[in-house]
Amino acid sequence: MRILVLGGDGYCGWATALYLAKKGHTVAIADNFARRLWDHELGVQTLTPIRSLSERLRVWEDLARKKIELFVGDVTDYDFLSSLLKSFEPEAVIHFAEQRSAPYSMIDRKHAVSTQVNNVVGTLNLLFALREFQPDCHLIKLGTMGEYGTPNIDIEEGYITIEHNGRKDTLPYPKQPGSFYHLSKVHDSHNIAFTCKIWGLRATDLNQGVVYGTMTDEVGLDEALINRFDYDEVFGTVLNRFCAQAAIGLPLTVYGKGGQARGFLDIRDTVRCVEIACTNPAARGEFRVFNQFTEQFSVLGLAKLVQGAGKKLGLKVEVNHLPDPRVEAEEHYYNAKHSKLVELGLQPHLLSDSLLDSLMNVAMKYRDRIDAAVMMPRINWRQPSNERPLQKSATRHASVSEISQPLVAEPVAAGGSNGNHGGPSLARSENSKLVS
Amino acid sequence: MRILVLGGDGYCGWATALYLAKKGHTVAIADNFARRLWDHELGVQTLTPIRSLSERLRVWEDLARKKIELFVGDVTDYDFLSSLLKSFEPEAVIHFAEQRSAPYSMIDRKHAVSTQVNNVVGTLNLLFALREFQPDCHLIKLGTMGEYGTPNIDIEEGYITIEHNGRKDTLPYPKQPGSFYHLSKVHDSHNIAFTCKIWGLRATDLNQGVVYGTMTDEVGLDEALINRFDYDEVFGTVLNRFCAQAAIGLPLTVYGKGGQARGFLDIRDTVRCVEIACTNPAARGEFRVFNQFTEQFSVLGLAKLVQGAGKKLGLKVEVNHLPDPRVEAEEHYYNAKHSKLVELGLQPHLLSDSLLDSLMNVAMKYRDRIDAAVMMPRINWRQPSNERPLQKSATRHASVSEISQPLVAEPVAAGGSNGNHGGPSLARSENSKLVS
Repeated sequence: MRILVLGGDGYCGWATALYLAKKGHTVAIADNFARRLWDHELGVQTLTPIRSLSERLRVWEDLARKKIELFVGDVTDYDFLSSLLKSFEPEAVIHFAEQRSAPYSMIDRKHAVSTQVNNVVGTLNLLFALREFQPDCHLIKLGTMGEYGTPNIDIEEGYITIEHNGRKDTLPYPKQPGSFYHLSKVHDSHNIAFTCKIWGLRATDLNQGVVYGTMTDEVGLDEALINRFDYDEVFGTVLNRFCAQAAIGLPLTVYGKGGQARGFLDIRDTVRCVEIACTNPAARGEFRVFNQFTEQFSVLGLAKLVQGAGKKLGLKVEVNHLPDPRVEAEEHYYNAKHSKLVELGLQPHLLSDSLLDSLMNVAMKYRDRIDAAVMMPRINWRQPSNERPLQKSATRHASVSEISQPLVAEPVAAGGSNGNHGGPSLARSENSKLVS
Repeated sequence: MRILVLGGDGYCGWATALYLAKKGHTVAIADNFARRLWDHELGVQTLTPIRSLSERLRVWEDLARKKIELFVGDVTDYDFLSSLLKSFEPEAVIHFAEQRSAPYSMIDRKHAVSTQVNNVVGTLNLLFALREFQPDCHLIKLGTMGEYGTPNIDIEEGYITIEHNGRKDTLPYPKQPGSFYHLSKVHDSHNIAFTCKIWGLRATDLNQGVVYGTMTDEVGLDEALINRFDYDEVFGTVLNRFCAQAAIGLPLTVYGKGGQARGFLDIRDTVRCVEIACTNPAARGEFRVFNQFTEQFSVLGLAKLVQGAGKKLGLKVEVNHLPDPRVEAEEHYYNAKHSKLVELGLQPHLLSDSLLDSLMNVAMKYRDRIDAAVMMPRINWRQPSNERPLQKSATRHASVSEISQPLVAEPVAAGGSNGNHGGPSLARSENSKLVS
């Protein structure tokens, strides 16, 4: 198949592009390098030393003897996007080209607006371009499990059949997203569903859980192909951050009680799920939704798993509870369905098998690159304007030996997650002193 | 109360501002005159000869001996909006300042994008400005009944209690909006609900039905205060258009079978509903949803009512069925709840009482200003790019005598609402010949 990966220089995009190319598909990447720019903005970097995209692609071509075509540009630029579709003529387009961090969208008004405008306009452009130039192409859109929030009933895959006052209908599952970023994905889902209906586009919305890990067979082929491993407060996902903290002897930072349950998956399952969606396309006019994760964990449960894995490596791992900087239920019912991808052939990698190999070992290997200062939560959901991490960062890249104390002394007060509190910011000041 | 009306130069905004001022509230209007600009863009104008806002406000001040303050600017300009809140310090802000036409949003990609960006960013700005500068102020946001679509179960007011697999929760009512405009309102609703939750803002979302009529006690005080009466394809609502068609002897243009049922209300009820929301504010942290309409009608049912009213005035009114330019069910279940505003004191004006006075008589009075060419549907939901009416319009403002034949000869074919068809465009060409 001819498959176009929008955002192919990012974490999921890069792994997906290589995996699909290895499987024999003709793959092209489009990217505007926004993800690399955000690292500069925030003063952070991936734990793993990733190479420039041009170098990555050169090495891939040498190894695989198959070229991945590159288009540099922005999906919010309609001229770029429509030329791209006309020239590459994809049969499937995987849309990773969005701002994908909840904390980033919560920094302040400008970041909230830029996240929603970037994501919504990029997707609208793609829908119009598909309708005009490639109407039979299958759109595979990355959504998020966070679109659903944490309702007190089972979460279904995109739709729910409701009986009400003696009548029945199957309707879009109600959404309760928890950040301006998650909201942008909900907006996208509504826009895509509408264009499938009116124009007969075909689309699959992959409501993905929290992805962990770095290794896939393809990125493991050569050091130059290595994938991102984000562990910072803003772009780092929770499990990556825990592993980085464990690797340098910092307490794991659990937000609040840690009863927040979410769906998780290994990046090796991300790439496989995308392939399954490609090879089993939605029908014309169909807006299909898959919940893309393999296991449910609570945040505290993950912390305990990392503690156990650390022990095997001889690490003493503490767990700290911080006031939750997000507004979310810290304990709740959570039961999300995720059978559709399994029915189509997904064989999950389980965290218990990957934790040491794909996560802790990577964190240990690159531990000298870990910046302790970027892992503490400073972006507070309750504040309409937050300082960006970079702005108060006098000292970066503290080495392990400089950090000897838990960064946060403040315990979680009863009801500590309600109302404004300065906890994380204070913690940050403490930290600044410690590492300067 | 100190009440700020965003979009106070528009159809609902103007009537609301005067009504609230008459009731003794201290009212300010903010507007950027976008609505007047769109008339120029489309080559249309309101049936009623509205005056400039500055003249309207001068006349109002003379009559009422009370000033309505004016702020000229754009809610997508955060500096303007935040200065406005700081200077006027409203206790309630009514947000009408959005692009509100479904066909306008369906013209092409640029109009879809500009509608969503304008509406979503304006509302995001307002939420951030309220949180920063006026957190106790009550936001009253105009939504639309069109957010719900036409589900096969009863439509509740904003939320629905769902029992599922033995558990129960009350969740946001699932949305199935039918245009990029309606989608923008759904996006807004999700964004507002989220900020009520995280920041404790107070908001009421008024999911308004289709508004008809022009007359309120206040706009009737002086010819200079007269309100808009839009009857064109793009901004004209269906009942206004039918009355204009009847007034000049044109057949009423029913889209498809006409079984599309919707909620309707008199503009005198719009202004009263807004006042009820103001004087019964939502609690801090509450995102309250009211369905704001008074009666349900099918489009064909409305056509028949207009036919009857025309007969009383000695007019012979025909009804034509056109291929539906929209993608919507032409026959469906529809039962939308609307009791909350009634419980708070709304006493509805019924269409049967208003049709002659507030609609047909206005249409007759200004019939010489009716432009027959702007009422035919040319914006097709199935086309990702539509010509704007203005672009093909060689002749405007045809007088009644020039139009002697029904404009559309093409009957509705069975299944005529599916797939692309050139019906409306052909009809337009016919019409161009007739009136040139």
